[in-house]
Amino acid sequence: MTNKTPADLIVSARWILPVRPTGRLYEHCALVIRDGNIIEIVPTSGIDSQFDYQEHIDLPNQLLMPGLINMHGHAAMSLFRGLADDLPLMEWLQDHIWPAEGEWVDEQFVLDGTQLAMAEMLLSGTTCFSDMYFYPEAAAGAAFEAGMRAQINFPILDFPTQWGSGPEDYIHKGLKLHDNYRSVDLINIGFGPHAPYTVSDEPLKRIAVLAEELQAPIQIHMHETAQEVSDSIANFGVRPLQRIADLGLLGPATQLVHMTQIDEQDIALLTTYSAHVVHCPESNLKLASGFCPVHTLQEHCINTCLGTDGAASNNDLSLFDEMHTASLLGKGVAQRADALKSDTAIEMATINAATAMGLDNIVGSLEKGKRADFIAIDFSNLQQAPIYNLKSHLVNTHVSHLVTHVWVDGKCLVAERELQTLDTKDIYSKACAWQVKIQAQRASGK
Amino acid sequence: MTNKTPADLIVSARWILPVRPTGRLYEHCALVIRDGNIIEIVPTSGIDSQFDYQEHIDLPNQLLMPGLINMHGHAAMSLFRGLADDLPLMEWLQDHIWPAEGEWVDEQFVLDGTQLAMAEMLLSGTTCFSDMYFYPEAAAGAAFEAGMRAQINFPILDFPTQWGSGPEDYIHKGLKLHDNYRSVDLINIGFGPHAPYTVSDEPLKRIAVLAEELQAPIQIHMHETAQEVSDSIANFGVRPLQRIADLGLLGPATQLVHMTQIDEQDIALLTTYSAHVVHCPESNLKLASGFCPVHTLQEHCINTCLGTDGAASNNDLSLFDEMHTASLLGKGVAQRADALKSDTAIEMATINAATAMGLDNIVGSLEKGKRADFIAIDFSNLQQAPIYNLKSHLVNTHVSHLVTHVWVDGKCLVAERELQTLDTKDIYSKACAWQVKIQAQRASGK
Repeated sequence: MTNKTPADLIVSARWILPVRPTGRLYEHCALVIRDGNIIEIVPTSGIDSQFDYQEHIDLPNQLLMPGLINMHGHAAMSLFRGLADDLPLMEWLQDHIWPAEGEWVDEQFVLDGTQLAMAEMLLSGTTCFSDMYFYPEAAAGAAFEAGMRAQINFPILDFPTQWGSGPEDYIHKGLKLHDNYRSVDLINIGFGPHAPYTVSDEPLKRIAVLAEELQAPIQIHMHETAQEVSDSIANFGVRPLQRIADLGLLGPATQLVHMTQIDEQDIALLTTYSAHVVHCPESNLKLASGFCPVHTLQEHCINTCLGTDGAASNNDLSLFDEMHTASLLGKGVAQRADALKSDTAIEMATINAATAMGLDNIVGSLEKGKRADFIAIDFSNLQQAPIYNLKSHLVNTHVSHLVTHVWVDGKCLVAERELQTLDTKDIYSKACAWQVKIQAQRASGK
Repeated sequence: MTNKTPADLIVSARWILPVRPTGRLYEHCALVIRDGNIIEIVPTSGIDSQFDYQEHIDLPNQLLMPGLINMHGHAAMSLFRGLADDLPLMEWLQDHIWPAEGEWVDEQFVLDGTQLAMAEMLLSGTTCFSDMYFYPEAAAGAAFEAGMRAQINFPILDFPTQWGSGPEDYIHKGLKLHDNYRSVDLINIGFGPHAPYTVSDEPLKRIAVLAEELQAPIQIHMHETAQEVSDSIANFGVRPLQRIADLGLLGPATQLVHMTQIDEQDIALLTTYSAHVVHCPESNLKLASGFCPVHTLQEHCINTCLGTDGAASNNDLSLFDEMHTASLLGKGVAQRADALKSDTAIEMATINAATAMGLDNIVGSLEKGKRADFIAIDFSNLQQAPIYNLKSHLVNTHVSHLVTHVWVDGKCLVAERELQTLDTKDIYSKACAWQVKIQAQRASGK
């Protein structure tokens, strides 16, 4: 008979950055995992005497940290990566992206594109993503199959698309999807009204009621450009944020993507309703949409997190890069070098995002009792030497490609930089096949 | 007897992006090199019938392009990477960087730090760099030994440092260095007056005369912050740029680093004197120094290029990342998504930089008659799939770590991602040794 505690997996590493408690850094410690939960963080030296474990993985040059959470994207659009660049938002959307979507997007496209995106996200340390795209059932299925955690927001627009005929149809299909995943812990289905300028009052009101009823999150593009705000004032007499507040859509389950235009009234609304802001700095810069005043939001204790947006406006899905850009840009915009410090950028990509998703009791930090969503980053490289400040290196030196291992819910999805649940070769060859088809059609000028 | 043209090396690749002629992209072609010169760019299919070559390297998944040119840095400061972050320029300099330099910087530090920086630069595709730091003879020697192309700017300040007692001493040592490298093609010695606020009128005038005489470049930090400009107006009655113009220091061999503060008068001066602007977007953001209006400069046909600045304010030395940040930020600042397109960002890091250095007849593009400074980037990765636009991928997806080969002056410095002329293990262990020493001293609170 043994007094040892049973465990499935122990991962020991040079460093563990748990994110919570704030400021903590473990050295030469190990995460102990059972049934997908973190049951202990202990000095590596004691694991043999304390635990009866199935597997021990030692990562002597690595840092473990919570898996990153990409709060906004359109995963399948990875198949449009680089299709149209250097264009303003409306021209980019109307002349390039929407026509390409009309031509190509179907269930297979979404499946293949989502797998491509997940492969890229996993290999760069993202364990959970929030998505908003057509055929959300294909995206949800792909995430579930791969073992990734995801919030899949089904799209709602006033106009018909290949996925549905209008608001009623979108909501009907979305509710069915929500029902299908009710008992699946990894997949959370949310409402994805596209934007205040593409969804009218009635569907927005209905979404507010349904989301409240189902306790489901709402993700919406909001205040992406100054034009959007002035159009709303012209058409509705109020700014978009005020309008959705009036319609009952603003609350602690609401995730507002972009928010480059913020005035004092907006800050008051965000504070009153405890809504979350999803900052997408690279997309905002690339489309010249404006600067989100992240430092100001943080001074007002408004929860801020990070998204890459789709690969067509980024053009990669690395959250480490997004942390870097957010930190740099946050300082530049605030005109304060002490704004958006490394700590803050890391929190935005982990615990803040978990909070926005309502999952902060489950993921976002490495603590006893949380699910084991974590990643390992190799720090034994010239590009990271010397090491005075690990958190600064995570944010300010490029580490995306130095992610060696990824676990979600205690399951290994990346080992030694190789995908374990997705087929790299198959995904790559499918992406190339889509490229050939799409290029041929563009070349023919149709 | 053969009619074939003799060649030393032929490198064939899937794509060649020569940068000049503008808009050209070769597919399935090869660079033919003899005596370090590019003598032809031809279809790969014809090489056997046309050339009698020593070596042929085929890179079927790669793109070849000109080696990147890092126009501003303090290479040895890589040993201070991450030592102090999230602080404004003057506090960062006065409370952290200058004391650390006073404590640690000597010839060995500069040698070890420059090698660390060169290793990082080469592995991320940089073939040429401009440097400004103490013990420039150590940096020049290190670059020469490694086979890198460099412009080494010896520092000049009003006050004494470990390297010299004052302006006269700095200039004396610098001229000797210039003399030593007179016949070395790879190494160009330039004047490095630190900044208008650290060098007074007399030495600046003397530098202007000497640089003209020697046909040597001048690199100077200029208009880095608004404070610098207002101080100059208070102290000298004019903006710094006007002051150095009045002192004779502004001309086509002058490289102005930072320039975050630019008014119409500055633009007129830059145009009149054909001076070059070295944009360091990541450093400017990190220190919250301000935004350089790059798009406006480019509209006025002022030559703009890119620098990483030192690793202590970046914190990496990847020029691909700098291109990415420059392109994104340029759009954001200009409020135009069509500003600073991928093409432009690539030119800034190649041909524009060569022009600023006065080396545009030698490097900066892949053309017949130029020296063979070029790099290969692997494009067979998930993160770059699909490929609709190679130039966009070079700028907008992270490719630093996908550089597989680097040649300078026809000599291979990186092959299959391994350094050929620098000792990776030795450089890494020296960086770790410096870390231990510097950390111990900081921990002791001395």
